[in-house]
Amino acid sequence: MNIIWNPREIENRSMEIIESYLDGYEFGPVEKQIVKRVIHTTGDPDIVKYLRFHPRAIEAGLSALEGGAHVFTDVNMLKSGINAARLESCGGQVLCLISEPATIANSKAWEITRAAAAMRQFGPRLNGAIVAIGNAPTALFEVLDLVEQGICRPALVVGTPVGFVGAAESKEMLVGQDLIPYISLLGTRGGSPIAVSIVNALLYSEGA
Amino acid sequence: MNIIWNPREIENRSMEIIESYLDGYEFGPVEKQIVKRVIHTTGDPDIVKYLRFHPRAIEAGLSALEGGAHVFTDVNMLKSGINAARLESCGGQVLCLISEPATIANSKAWEITRAAAAMRQFGPRLNGAIVAIGNAPTALFEVLDLVEQGICRPALVVGTPVGFVGAAESKEMLVGQDLIPYISLLGTRGGSPIAVSIVNALLYSEGA
Repeated sequence: MNIIWNPREIENRSMEIIESYLDGYEFGPVEKQIVKRVIHTTGDPDIVKYLRFHPRAIEAGLSALEGGAHVFTDVNMLKSGINAARLESCGGQVLCLISEPATIANSKAWEITRAAAAMRQFGPRLNGAIVAIGNAPTALFEVLDLVEQGICRPALVVGTPVGFVGAAESKEMLVGQDLIPYISLLGTRGGSPIAVSIVNALLYSEGA
Repeated sequence: MNIIWNPREIENRSMEIIESYLDGYEFGPVEKQIVKRVIHTTGDPDIVKYLRFHPRAIEAGLSALEGGAHVFTDVNMLKSGINAARLESCGGQVLCLISEPATIANSKAWEITRAAAAMRQFGPRLNGAIVAIGNAPTALFEVLDLVEQGICRPALVVGTPVGFVGAAESKEMLVGQDLIPYISLLGTRGGSPIAVSIVNALLYSEGA
Protein backbone atom coordinates (compact mmCIF):
# COMPACT_ATOMS: atom_id res chain seq x y z
CA MET A 1 0.00 0.00 0.00
CA ASN A 2 1.20 3.48 -0.86
CA ILE A 3 0.84 5.32 2.45
CA ILE A 4 1.23 9.11 2.42
CA TRP A 5 3.10 10.08 5.61
CA ASN A 6 3.90 13.72 4.94
CA PRO A 7 1.41 16.00 6.70
CA ARG A 8 1.46 18.72 4.02
CA GLU A 9 0.93 16.18 1.27
CA ILE A 10 -1.96 14.53 3.18
CA GLU A 11 -3.62 17.90 3.68
CA ASN A 12 -3.22 18.92 0.03
CA ARG A 13 -4.45 15.60 -1.34
CA SER A 14 -7.42 15.67 1.10
CA MET A 15 -8.45 19.10 -0.01
CA GLU A 16 -8.20 18.12 -3.69
CA ILE A 17 -10.49 15.15 -3.11
CA ILE A 18 -12.93 17.25 -1.09
CA GLU A 19 -12.91 19.99 -3.75
CA SER A 20 -14.03 17.39 -6.30
CA TYR A 21 -17.17 16.77 -4.23
CA LEU A 22 -18.21 20.42 -4.42
CA ASP A 23 -18.88 20.66 -8.14
CA GLY A 24 -22.24 22.27 -8.75
CA TYR A 25 -22.42 24.08 -5.41
CA GLU A 26 -22.12 27.84 -5.24
CA PHE A 27 -20.36 29.15 -2.17
CA GLY A 28 -18.47 32.32 -1.42
CA PRO A 29 -14.72 31.80 -0.86
CA VAL A 30 -14.87 31.67 2.95
CA GLU A 31 -18.08 29.64 2.94
CA LYS A 32 -16.30 27.16 0.69
CA GLN A 33 -13.38 26.90 3.12
CA ILE A 34 -15.86 26.18 5.90
CA VAL A 35 -17.67 23.53 3.88
CA LYS A 36 -14.37 21.87 3.02
CA ARG A 37 -13.25 21.81 6.65
CA VAL A 38 -16.57 20.32 7.77
CA ILE A 39 -16.28 17.56 5.16
CA HIS A 40 -12.65 17.05 6.18
CA THR A 41 -13.63 16.65 9.83
CA THR A 42 -16.51 14.25 9.32
CA GLY A 43 -15.16 12.31 6.35
CA ASP A 44 -18.59 12.67 4.80
CA PRO A 45 -19.09 14.66 1.59
CA ASP A 46 -22.90 14.33 1.89
CA ILE A 47 -22.91 16.60 4.92
CA VAL A 48 -22.72 19.65 2.65
CA LYS A 49 -26.45 19.22 1.94
CA TYR A 50 -27.31 20.14 5.51
CA LEU A 51 -25.10 23.20 5.97
CA ARG A 52 -26.81 26.58 6.15
CA PHE A 53 -25.23 30.03 6.05
CA HIS A 54 -27.06 33.21 6.95
CA PRO A 55 -26.33 35.74 4.16
CA ARG A 56 -24.34 37.95 6.57
CA ALA A 57 -22.66 35.12 8.50
CA ILE A 58 -19.17 35.37 7.01
CA GLU A 59 -18.99 39.15 7.11
CA ALA A 60 -20.30 39.24 10.67
CA GLY A 61 -18.00 36.46 11.88
CA LEU A 62 -14.86 37.88 10.32
CA SER A 63 -15.56 41.38 11.47
CA ALA A 64 -16.17 40.17 15.03
CA LEU A 65 -12.94 38.18 15.06
CA GLU A 66 -10.97 41.12 13.67
CA GLY A 67 -12.43 43.26 16.43
CA GLY A 68 -11.17 40.88 19.15
CA ALA A 69 -14.47 39.14 19.89
CA HIS A 70 -14.42 36.20 22.28
CA VAL A 71 -15.73 32.77 21.35
CA PHE A 72 -18.14 31.27 23.90
CA THR A 73 -18.59 27.50 23.64
CA ASP A 74 -21.09 25.10 25.14
CA VAL A 75 -18.63 22.29 25.87
CA ASN A 76 -14.93 21.89 26.64
CA MET A 77 -14.28 19.59 23.68
CA LEU A 78 -15.24 22.45 21.39
CA LYS A 79 -13.13 24.87 23.38
CA SER A 80 -10.10 22.61 23.18
CA GLY A 81 -10.39 22.28 19.39
CA ILE A 82 -10.41 25.98 18.57
CA ASN A 83 -7.10 27.52 17.59
CA ALA A 84 -6.73 29.65 20.71
CA ALA A 85 -3.35 31.10 19.70
CA ARG A 86 -4.81 32.40 16.45
CA LEU A 87 -7.82 33.82 18.27
CA GLU A 88 -5.62 35.48 20.89
CA SER A 89 -3.56 37.12 18.16
CA CYS A 90 -6.79 38.90 17.16
CA GLY A 91 -7.47 39.82 20.81
CA GLY A 92 -10.12 37.20 21.61
CA GLN A 93 -10.34 34.24 23.97
CA VAL A 94 -12.23 30.96 24.01
CA LEU A 95 -14.50 30.68 27.03
CA CYS A 96 -16.51 27.76 28.37
CA LEU A 97 -18.24 27.63 31.76
CA ILE A 98 -19.68 24.12 31.68
CA SER A 99 -17.36 22.70 34.36
CA GLU A 100 -17.45 25.67 36.74
CA PRO A 101 -18.91 24.96 40.19
CA ALA A 102 -21.37 27.86 39.77
CA THR A 103 -22.65 26.37 36.53
CA ILE A 104 -23.12 22.97 38.10
CA ALA A 105 -24.99 24.53 41.03
CA ASN A 106 -27.14 26.68 38.74
CA SER A 107 -27.99 23.83 36.42
CA LYS A 108 -29.33 21.93 39.43
CA ALA A 109 -31.23 24.93 40.78
CA TRP A 110 -32.69 25.82 37.38
CA GLU A 111 -33.25 22.19 36.35
CA ILE A 112 -31.60 22.74 33.01
CA THR A 113 -28.47 21.28 31.44
CA ARG A 114 -25.07 22.62 32.42
CA ALA A 115 -24.53 23.79 28.86
CA ALA A 116 -27.72 25.87 28.98
CA ALA A 117 -26.87 27.19 32.45
CA ALA A 118 -23.46 28.25 31.15
CA MET A 119 -25.07 30.31 28.38
CA ARG A 120 -27.50 31.92 30.82
CA GLN A 121 -24.57 32.88 33.06
CA PHE A 122 -22.68 34.42 30.14
CA GLY A 123 -25.78 36.55 29.43
CA PRO A 124 -24.86 40.05 28.21
CA ARG A 125 -21.23 38.99 27.73
CA LEU A 126 -22.46 37.27 24.55
CA ASN A 127 -23.05 40.71 22.98
CA GLY A 128 -20.96 41.02 19.84
CA ALA A 129 -19.34 37.66 20.51
CA ILE A 130 -19.20 34.44 18.58
CA VAL A 131 -21.27 31.73 20.22
CA ALA A 132 -20.34 28.20 19.20
CA ILE A 133 -22.64 25.37 20.22
CA GLY A 134 -21.55 21.93 19.07
CA ASN A 135 -23.25 19.65 21.49
CA ALA A 136 -26.27 20.76 23.49
CA PRO A 137 -29.56 21.79 21.86
CA THR A 138 -30.60 23.29 25.20
CA ALA A 139 -27.64 25.72 25.01
CA LEU A 140 -28.85 26.87 21.61
CA PHE A 141 -32.46 27.20 22.80
CA GLU A 142 -31.15 29.23 25.74
CA VAL A 143 -29.14 31.60 23.54
CA LEU A 144 -32.11 32.13 21.21
CA ASP A 145 -34.21 32.87 24.27
CA LEU A 146 -31.64 35.39 25.60
CA VAL A 147 -31.69 37.07 22.19
CA GLU A 148 -35.47 37.18 22.11
CA GLN A 149 -35.51 38.68 25.61
CA GLY A 150 -33.06 41.35 24.44
CA ILE A 151 -30.41 40.22 26.94
CA CYS A 152 -27.72 39.70 24.32
CA ARG A 153 -27.04 39.95 20.64
CA PRO A 154 -24.11 37.81 19.51
CA ALA A 155 -22.31 38.74 16.28
CA LEU A 156 -22.59 35.16 15.02
CA VAL A 157 -24.00 31.89 16.28
CA VAL A 158 -22.32 28.73 15.06
CA GLY A 159 -24.96 26.18 15.95
CA THR A 160 -24.35 22.51 15.26
CA PRO A 161 -25.77 20.67 18.29
CA VAL A 162 -26.32 16.96 17.81
CA GLY A 163 -28.89 14.34 18.69
CA PHE A 164 -32.46 13.15 18.72
CA VAL A 165 -33.94 15.34 21.44
CA GLY A 166 -34.22 18.97 20.38
CA ALA A 167 -31.17 19.25 18.11
CA ALA A 168 -33.04 19.43 14.81
CA GLU A 169 -35.67 21.70 16.38
CA SER A 170 -33.11 24.08 17.90
CA LYS A 171 -31.37 24.45 14.55
CA GLU A 172 -34.65 25.00 12.69
CA MET A 173 -35.33 27.79 15.18
CA LEU A 174 -31.86 29.26 14.62
CA VAL A 175 -32.17 29.37 10.83
CA GLY A 176 -35.78 30.57 11.13
CA GLN A 177 -34.82 33.83 12.87
CA ASP A 178 -33.16 36.83 11.29
CA LEU A 179 -31.80 38.81 14.25
CA ILE A 180 -28.50 36.96 14.50
CA PRO A 181 -26.35 35.67 11.65
CA TYR A 182 -25.75 31.94 11.90
CA ILE A 183 -23.91 28.98 10.45
CA SER A 184 -25.71 25.72 11.09
CA LEU A 185 -26.20 22.12 10.07
CA LEU A 186 -29.80 20.95 9.85
CA GLY A 187 -31.09 17.65 11.18
CA THR A 188 -29.96 15.33 13.96
CA ARG A 189 -26.30 15.27 12.97
CA GLY A 190 -23.79 17.71 14.40
CA GLY A 191 -21.13 17.75 17.07
CA SER A 192 -18.25 19.70 18.52
CA PRO A 193 -15.74 18.92 15.76
CA ILE A 194 -18.10 20.40 13.19
CA ALA A 195 -18.40 23.60 15.21
CA VAL A 196 -14.61 23.59 15.68
CA SER A 197 -14.10 23.28 11.92
CA ILE A 198 -16.38 26.21 11.25
CA VAL A 199 -14.78 28.51 13.82
CA ASN A 200 -11.25 27.55 12.80
CA ALA A 201 -12.04 28.03 9.09
CA LEU A 202 -13.17 31.56 9.95
CA LEU A 203 -10.03 32.13 12.02
CA TYR A 204 -7.76 30.88 9.24
CA SER A 205 -9.43 33.03 6.60
CA GLU A 206 -9.45 36.11 8.84
CA GLY A 207 -7.04 38.62 7.41
CA ALA A 208 -6.17 36.16 4.61
CA MET B 1 -42.53 23.89 21.12
CA ASN B 2 -42.17 21.40 23.95
CA ILE B 3 -38.49 21.72 24.87
CA ILE B 4 -37.02 19.14 27.26
CA TRP B 5 -34.60 20.96 29.59
CA ASN B 6 -33.87 18.29 32.16
CA PRO B 7 -30.57 16.54 31.44
CA ARG B 8 -31.65 13.15 32.77
CA GLU B 9 -34.87 13.27 30.76
CA ILE B 10 -32.97 14.27 27.59
CA GLU B 11 -30.55 11.39 28.06
CA ASN B 12 -33.30 8.85 28.70
CA ARG B 13 -35.44 9.98 25.78
CA SER B 14 -32.35 10.00 23.51
CA MET B 15 -31.44 6.47 24.43
CA GLU B 16 -35.02 5.27 23.84
CA ILE B 17 -35.01 6.77 20.35
CA ILE B 18 -31.59 5.31 19.59
CA GLU B 19 -32.65 1.90 20.90
CA SER B 20 -35.49 1.91 18.38
CA TYR B 21 -32.96 2.14 15.56
CA LEU B 22 -31.20 -1.03 16.67
CA ASP B 23 -33.98 -3.51 15.99
CA GLY B 24 -32.62 -6.43 14.02
CA TYR B 25 -29.01 -6.00 15.09
CA GLU B 26 -27.37 -8.51 17.40
CA PHE B 27 -24.86 -7.02 19.79
CA GLY B 28 -23.55 -8.11 23.15
CA PRO B 29 -24.60 -5.81 26.03
CA VAL B 30 -21.41 -3.73 26.11
CA GLU B 31 -21.17 -3.63 22.32
CA LYS B 32 -24.71 -2.30 22.30
CA GLN B 33 -23.81 0.45 24.76
CA ILE B 34 -20.93 1.42 22.49
CA VAL B 35 -23.13 1.46 19.39
CA LYS B 36 -25.69 3.61 21.19
CA ARG B 37 -23.06 6.11 22.34
CA VAL B 38 -21.62 6.38 18.84
CA ILE B 39 -25.08 7.07 17.39
CA HIS B 40 -25.70 9.54 20.22
CA THR B 41 -22.47 11.40 19.43
CA THR B 42 -22.93 11.62 15.68
CA GLY B 43 -26.71 11.98 15.55
CA ASP B 44 -26.66 9.43 12.76
CA PRO B 45 -28.33 6.03 13.21
CA ASP B 46 -26.89 4.82 9.87
CA ILE B 47 -23.41 4.81 11.31
CA VAL B 48 -24.07 1.45 12.96
CA LYS B 49 -23.54 -0.21 9.57
CA TYR B 50 -19.86 0.69 9.58
CA LEU B 51 -18.96 -0.32 13.14
CA ARG B 52 -16.76 -3.40 13.55
CA PHE B 53 -15.93 -5.26 16.77
CA HIS B 54 -13.20 -7.85 17.03
CA PRO B 55 -14.69 -10.89 18.84
CA ARG B 56 -12.43 -10.32 21.86
CA ALA B 57 -12.61 -6.51 21.85
CA ILE B 58 -14.94 -6.01 24.81
CA GLU B 59 -13.33 -8.61 27.02
CA ALA B 60 -9.84 -7.30 26.22
CA GLY B 61 -10.82 -3.65 26.70
CA LEU B 62 -12.61 -4.19 30.01
CA SER B 63 -9.91 -6.38 31.42
CA ALA B 64 -7.24 -3.84 30.47
CA LEU B 65 -9.20 -1.00 32.10
CA GLU B 66 -9.78 -3.03 35.25
CA GLY B 67 -6.05 -3.71 35.38
CA GLY B 68 -5.24 0.02 35.33
CA ALA B 69 -4.22 0.28 31.67
CA HIS B 70 -3.48 3.72 30.28
CA VAL B 71 -5.28 5.13 27.24
CA PHE B 72 -2.94 6.57 24.60
CA THR B 73 -4.60 8.96 22.14
CA ASP B 74 -3.50 10.45 18.84
CA VAL B 75 -4.92 13.94 19.41
CA ASN B 76 -5.75 16.21 22.33
CA MET B 77 -9.42 16.53 21.43
CA LEU B 78 -9.79 12.82 22.02
CA LYS B 79 -7.82 13.05 25.25
CA SER B 80 -10.01 15.86 26.53
CA GLY B 81 -13.20 13.91 25.85
CA ILE B 82 -12.31 10.80 27.80
CA ASN B 83 -13.62 10.56 31.35
CA ALA B 84 -10.24 10.89 33.04
CA ALA B 85 -11.64 10.72 36.58
CA ARG B 86 -13.28 7.40 35.85
CA LEU B 87 -10.12 6.09 34.22
CA GLU B 88 -8.00 7.26 37.15
CA SER B 89 -10.29 5.47 39.57
CA CYS B 90 -9.24 2.26 37.77
CA GLY B 91 -5.58 3.28 37.95
CA GLY B 92 -5.10 4.48 34.37
CA GLN B 93 -4.31 7.81 32.73
CA VAL B 94 -5.02 9.39 29.36
CA LEU B 95 -1.84 10.26 27.53
CA CYS B 96 -1.26 12.23 24.34
CA LEU B 97 2.11 13.44 23.06
CA ILE B 98 1.06 15.31 19.94
CA SER B 99 1.87 18.78 21.27
CA GLU B 100 5.16 17.90 22.98
CA PRO B 101 8.24 19.67 21.61
CA ALA B 102 9.98 16.30 21.12
CA THR B 103 7.08 15.06 19.00
CA ILE B 104 7.12 18.18 16.87
CA ALA B 105 10.89 17.85 16.35
CA ASN B 106 10.64 14.12 15.59
CA SER B 107 7.77 14.55 13.17
CA LYS B 108 9.94 16.98 11.20
CA ALA B 109 12.99 14.75 11.34
CA TRP B 110 11.04 11.64 10.40
CA GLU B 111 8.83 13.45 7.86
CA ILE B 112 5.69 11.94 9.33
CA THR B 113 2.69 13.47 11.03
CA ARG B 114 2.90 14.51 14.66
CA ALA B 115 0.24 11.94 15.52
CA ALA B 116 2.33 9.14 13.99
CA ALA B 117 5.50 10.45 15.66
CA ALA B 118 3.67 10.43 19.00
CA MET B 119 2.79 6.74 18.58
CA ARG B 120 6.37 5.87 17.60
CA GLN B 121 7.63 7.66 20.72
CA PHE B 122 5.19 5.76 22.94
CA GLY B 123 6.58 2.50 21.46
CA PRO B 124 6.72 -0.29 24.06
CA ARG B 125 4.61 1.77 26.49
CA LEU B 126 1.65 0.75 24.29
CA ASN B 127 1.99 -2.83 25.57
CA GLY B 128 -1.21 -3.88 27.27
CA ALA B 129 -2.64 -0.40 26.85
CA ILE B 130 -5.68 0.94 25.06
CA VAL B 131 -4.74 2.90 21.97
CA ALA B 132 -7.41 5.29 20.76
CA ILE B 133 -6.97 6.91 17.35
CA GLY B 134 -9.76 9.23 16.31
CA ASN B 135 -8.13 11.47 13.81
CA ALA B 136 -4.95 10.47 12.04
CA PRO B 137 -4.74 7.44 9.74
CA THR B 138 -0.94 7.72 9.92
CA ALA B 139 -1.09 7.12 13.70
CA LEU B 140 -3.03 3.93 13.08
CA PHE B 141 -0.64 2.80 10.33
CA GLU B 142 2.23 3.49 12.73
CA VAL B 143 0.70 1.45 15.55
CA LEU B 144 0.02 -1.47 13.21
CA ASP B 145 3.62 -1.24 12.06
CA LEU B 146 4.90 -1.23 15.67
CA VAL B 147 2.78 -4.34 16.32
CA GLU B 148 4.08 -6.06 13.21
CA GLN B 149 7.65 -5.26 14.25
CA GLY B 150 6.96 -6.78 17.66
CA ILE B 151 7.64 -3.48 19.42
CA CYS B 152 4.31 -3.37 21.21
CA ARG B 153 1.11 -5.26 21.67
CA PRO B 154 -1.77 -3.08 22.87
CA ALA B 155 -4.68 -4.74 24.67
CA LEU B 156 -7.17 -2.97 22.38
CA VAL B 157 -7.02 -0.53 19.50
CA VAL B 158 -9.97 1.81 19.11
CA GLY B 159 -9.39 3.02 15.57
CA THR B 160 -11.74 5.55 14.03
CA PRO B 161 -9.51 7.92 12.04
CA VAL B 162 -11.30 10.10 9.53
CA GLY B 163 -10.79 11.37 6.00
CA PHE B 164 -10.04 10.73 2.39
CA VAL B 165 -6.32 10.00 2.52
CA GLY B 166 -5.56 6.69 4.21
CA ALA B 167 -8.38 6.54 6.76
CA ALA B 168 -10.44 3.83 5.06
CA GLU B 169 -7.23 1.92 4.20
CA SER B 170 -5.83 2.12 7.74
CA LYS B 171 -9.08 0.77 9.17
CA GLU B 172 -9.26 -2.05 6.60
CA MET B 173 -5.76 -2.99 7.72
CA LEU B 174 -6.81 -2.88 11.38
CA VAL B 175 -9.82 -5.16 10.92
CA GLY B 176 -7.81 -7.40 8.60
CA GLN B 177 -5.30 -8.39 11.29
CA ASP B 178 -5.90 -10.70 14.21
CA LEU B 179 -3.06 -9.94 16.63
CA ILE B 180 -4.79 -7.06 18.39
CA PRO B 181 -8.46 -6.76 19.30
CA TYR B 182 -10.05 -3.69 17.76
CA ILE B 183 -13.16 -1.55 17.60
CA SER B 184 -13.39 0.38 14.36
CA LEU B 185 -15.61 2.22 11.90
CA LEU B 186 -15.04 1.40 8.24
CA GLY B 187 -14.88 3.96 5.46
CA THR B 188 -13.94 7.64 5.32
CA ARG B 189 -16.07 8.69 8.28
CA GLY B 190 -14.69 8.79 11.81
CA GLY B 191 -13.35 11.35 14.24
CA SER B 192 -12.32 11.95 17.82
CA PRO B 193 -15.83 12.09 19.30
CA ILE B 194 -16.52 8.62 17.96
CA ALA B 195 -13.36 7.27 19.59
CA VAL B 196 -14.29 9.16 22.79
CA SER B 197 -17.75 7.55 22.80
CA ILE B 198 -16.27 4.10 22.43
CA VAL B 199 -13.69 4.52 25.21
CA ASN B 200 -16.18 6.16 27.57
CA ALA B 201 -18.80 3.46 26.91
CA LEU B 202 -16.19 0.89 27.95
CA LEU B 203 -15.31 2.95 31.03
CA TYR B 204 -18.95 3.31 32.07
CA SER B 205 -19.65 -0.40 31.64
CA GLU B 206 -16.47 -1.39 33.48
CA GLY B 207 -17.40 -2.98 36.75
CA ALA B 208 -21.08 -2.34 35.97
